[in-house]
Amino acid sequence: MVADFAGVSKACVSKYLNKKPYVSKKTATKIQKIIDELDFKPNFLARSFAKQKSYSIGLLIRDIQNPYYGGIIKGIENYIATNKLNYHLIISDIKFLTNPADQFFNNLIERRVDGIITTTEIISPKYLEYLKKIKLPLVFLGCYVKNNFNFSYVGIDDYLGGYLISEYLLKLGHRDIKIITPSLCFSFANDRLSGHKKALKDMDQRFNSKNIYTINDWSIQGGFEAAKKIFKSNNKLSAIFCINDYVAYGVINYCYSNNIRIPDDVSITGFDDNVFSDFPFIKLTTIKEPVDKLGNIAAEILLRQIDGKDISVIKETLRPNLIIRNSTKALNILSDIK
Amino acid sequence: MVADFAGVSKACVSKYLNKKPYVSKKTATKIQKIIDELDFKPNFLARSFAKQKSYSIGLLIRDIQNPYYGGIIKGIENYIATNKLNYHLIISDIKFLTNPADQFFNNLIERRVDGIITTTEIISPKYLEYLKKIKLPLVFLGCYVKNNFNFSYVGIDDYLGGYLISEYLLKLGHRDIKIITPSLCFSFANDRLSGHKKALKDMDQRFNSKNIYTINDWSIQGGFEAAKKIFKSNNKLSAIFCINDYVAYGVINYCYSNNIRIPDDVSITGFDDNVFSDFPFIKLTTIKEPVDKLGNIAAEILLRQIDGKDISVIKETLRPNLIIRNSTKALNILSDIK
Repeated sequence: MVADFAGVSKACVSKYLNKKPYVSKKTATKIQKIIDELDFKPNFLARSFAKQKSYSIGLLIRDIQNPYYGGIIKGIENYIATNKLNYHLIISDIKFLTNPADQFFNNLIERRVDGIITTTEIISPKYLEYLKKIKLPLVFLGCYVKNNFNFSYVGIDDYLGGYLISEYLLKLGHRDIKIITPSLCFSFANDRLSGHKKALKDMDQRFNSKNIYTINDWSIQGGFEAAKKIFKSNNKLSAIFCINDYVAYGVINYCYSNNIRIPDDVSITGFDDNVFSDFPFIKLTTIKEPVDKLGNIAAEILLRQIDGKDISVIKETLRPNLIIRNSTKALNILSDIK
Repeated sequence: MVADFAGVSKACVSKYLNKKPYVSKKTATKIQKIIDELDFKPNFLARSFAKQKSYSIGLLIRDIQNPYYGGIIKGIENYIATNKLNYHLIISDIKFLTNPADQFFNNLIERRVDGIITTTEIISPKYLEYLKKIKLPLVFLGCYVKNNFNFSYVGIDDYLGGYLISEYLLKLGHRDIKIITPSLCFSFANDRLSGHKKALKDMDQRFNSKNIYTINDWSIQGGFEAAKKIFKSNNKLSAIFCINDYVAYGVINYCYSNNIRIPDDVSITGFDDNVFSDFPFIKLTTIKEPVDKLGNIAAEILLRQIDGKDISVIKETLRPNLIIRNSTKALNILSDIK
């Protein structure tokens, strides 16, 4: 698009378009008038190419239909909007992939995103080295690489979350606590379990590895299927610790459908405090994660790195809170021990 | 990044990178080896600039935390992945904006998206003319501009959906049916209401405009707040027709919290068949919208337009289905007429 800027220098037009000062009001009005008339839009592709910046941020998530990720996205976008930054998000839904997500990172890098926020840390060691080498601004959200971790990170204290909810169940008298969790190679799952073990230890209880039920798909459907198998093979359990609220909804769904009363027959806990967990027919005891805030902080760290304002590695851990609702109750020793 | 391609011609490398045939296996192996060694990535920004294409699609949605939109996004991404197309989505959450969304379109156009899928049709007439003028590939999903509409469209038959659910409620004996809906300037809301009116007419019933309760925020919270006001001012109503399932969840939430029994005291219907509607403690009677399919078709229409394969205006309307569950029941004439 060729625009004749009627005697105004290119440099001046550039200043105006880039919202820099030193453009007189009169000139600014003149430029704006021409822009309006010609329906001129700054050529984003040309600017991107010239600056070798795409003004885009990659985001790896696991399930676009889970409002947990919607909350993360909202938090990131709020930060961008509040600070009037001209970035957009490219969201990559990797689903419940358990293999290294290298290719998903690669796709984003090929698109020349200026930085990436990732909610998965499952990356092959070689690719992780590559990520370090290319110095792409990168923030891990709610997950981290276990060894030699030198990337920025924001998340809640999963260990404490796992501790708090387990301590609560133990204090209610529960001993046979089933844990529905994805593979422990995921840092959040591993940390929540470590917190659980610590709570057991503090209450002089022994951890039984048979109580772990591993799932590949930590969705509502995944929770439902897990519950189906668990209840068929075990009628002694008194509580189920679900790795997140969506899995808990699946378990609750199964219980309702099979006349298993919550919390009379079984106590259920979740993790993250999803949008439905406060519903009167769910009332899930869970751990509150401030998802908006997590997204907000991740965006702040990443964009400061992209702008070169702060390239240090930042690690921020937020404190989780236990939310007690009606899906849990004290074990009645007289009637409930089987 | 300068790559020495060891005697292989530039044209040949280009063919290989663009996955065109006519590159011998031997040459292909040679090129791939160099790419691996040099960690060469095609410069996406350079290619975008050269072709004046961004390989991005804009998508305007209303609530990233509603799995309805998650389903739409999944449908679009499945189409892109299945057809191995190199496009990415730029999602713009306009929330429950009731003013013209011109600026949101503008932001996407400034980013040089190659096309837009929009779930809102609230655009100022002047801007709509502009959209026609610039010939940007554009698909309306689940909404359309009422007059002089010359854009591609995909959606369900909202009129039929409104008819089916109203006919069902009327056949159950309900006469005082409250409708919770956003402003009728939204095509989907207007069409669903028109279907409702037709069902009334076919059953020799008169439409009472007092039965419409307008909301600005058709979320769970919006439904909850609406129910609070409706039940305070009207204890005669026997059924509530909610504009979507999320609003219905809010109404159900309110009813549970206030000991209003569903369906004994009031029948509730939704629209779209969201992921929670089949849950045993919700069991919502609703209209099923094939959201994945809507996203899939929208992507197909749009990408054919972008590629110049088919620039004709395409309008595709899918048939909705009535799903009968437990949130509705026949009015018991003896006990329920008040």
